Amino acid sequence: MQIAKVRGTIVSTQKDPSLQGTKFLFLQMIDDQGQLQPNYEVAADVVGAGVDEWVLVSRGSAARQFQGGEHRPLDALVVGIIDTVSVDNSLLYSKKDSYR
Amino acid sequence: MQIAKVRGTIVSTQKDPSLQGTKFLFLQMIDDQGQLQPNYEVAADVVGAGVDEWVLVSRGSAARQFQGGEHRPLDALVVGIIDTVSVDNSLLYSKKDSYR
Amino acid sequence: MQIAKVRGTIVSTQKDPSLQGTKFLFLQMIDDQGQLQPNYEVAADVVGAGVDEWVLVSRGSAARQFQGGEHRPLDALVVGIIDTVSVDNSLLYSKKDSYR
Amino acid sequence: MQIAKVRGTIVSTQKDPSLQGTKFLFLQMIDDQGQLQPNYEVAADVVGAGVDEWVLVSRGSAARQFQGGEHRPLDALVVGIIDTVSVDNSLLYSKKDSYR
Amino acid sequence: MQIAKVRGTIVSTQKDPSLQGTKFLFLQMIDDQGQLQPNYEVAADVVGAGVDEWVLVSRGSAARQFQGGEHRPLDALVVGIIDTVSVDNSLLYSKKDSYR
Repeated sequence: MQIAKVRGTIVSTQKDPSLQGTKFLFLQMIDDQGQLQPNYEVAADVVGAGVDEWVLVSRGSAARQFQGGEHRPLDALVVGIIDTVSVDNSLLYSKKDSYR
Repeated sequence: MQIAKVRGTIVSTQKDPSLQGTKFLFLQMIDDQGQLQPNYEVAADVVGAGVDEWVLVSRGSAARQFQGGEHRPLDALVVGIIDTVSVDNSLLYSKKDSYR
Repeated sequence: MQIAKVRGTIVSTQKDPSLQGTKFLFLQMIDDQGQLQPNYEVAADVVGAGVDEWVLVSRGSAARQFQGGEHRPLDALVVGIIDTVSVDNSLLYSKKDSYR
Repeated sequence: MQIAKVRGTIVSTQKDPSLQGTKFLFLQMIDDQGQLQPNYEVAADVVGAGVDEWVLVSRGSAARQFQGGEHRPLDALVVGIIDTVSVDNSLLYSKKDSYR
Repeated sequence: MQIAKVRGTIVSTQKDPSLQGTKFLFLQMIDDQGQLQPNYEVAADVVGAGVDEWVLVSRGSAARQFQGGEHRPLDALVVGIIDTVSVDNSLLYSKKDSYR
């Protein structure tokens, strides 16, 4: 999985019928220093992530491994909202600190 | 998924029999600033996207997750026509504005 | 799919038994300007593509979606010989012109 | 597979239900000279890898090929703890030497 | 598939049970000029490839398409030992010449 920050949303009315009701999030990837990278991913969301939160995104066939997702043409999925990222025994990110 | 702009079409007469009738679109990828990138994707289309429209493209096995697509050798699929892309509460793209 | 040009062939005698009789083509990738890129792909061929032809190549599990290919360890497949590539209403490539 | 070094952990409370109890490791990729690369992977762990150990990481659908993992939205998995990496008949890495 | 050169081996004692007995090769990727690239792949081997040989490597789910490999967490597999690579009607590589 990669770490990403929720930056916005995509609206698409005319889409594959299986995607009706799917919410598309615009995610910006985070590098190993905690900085935003130029590359992004548009992902479906099953955990209710909100703007500015850091999330774990799974790509490839993993993006269809959720209740009811098996036959949707998805290749990216938010699978978790991140509480903390710890690297070398120090905190790279803490959700609590971000919202102080 | 990635965001891409429909730039053209590919015609192939001699192809795998399962691809008869499949329309191939030439898509140019869009970066996080809304600019065209040099990389492209040739994708099948199930939503009737037209030239200059911005679309969502799914890659990998996701490209076969549509009615009748299960056994076709496809690795990229247009899954939706984009109405709006909102990043940091501002519009990066709006289909309506593009056609004014 | 990506656009590639057939540049040559690979011969492998000692290989997985399921690949007996599989022809391996050496493909050089084509960029969005119609120029050869440094990256390449070795792909199986089910459409009878010949040297110098431009082809569509599918990668990943798509490469096993052909009659008899389901259980072969392939990750790239030539799925069509390209007749024309049209971008922004002009021809980037036409097979007919290439062989004049 | 790629070679990576365990650098830390990710905690996510709000996640897909199938991921309850899954431990997420923060892995930094190792290059062919044995040096840390800037790119990373967040992977599930089935072998009990610890911080500073070098591991083998599988990506894509391979990450769900373990007892009970078939339907979890995972795209990266630690599949082994590395004892030695030998390149050109010399040791690039030895776990034993790392802990002397 | 990509072309790679066998450079060494990886030993991992503590690994997923399904990988017992799997031999891991350290492969260095070969570019379109026949030169070694910095990127590498650790792959399982089903054809008995030896150090210095050039091989074809398949990645992704293709790496599990061999007798008994269906449920192992592998994402890279050596599928053939290369005899010759011919590009533009000249030999880029010949195994016979390499061992003279």
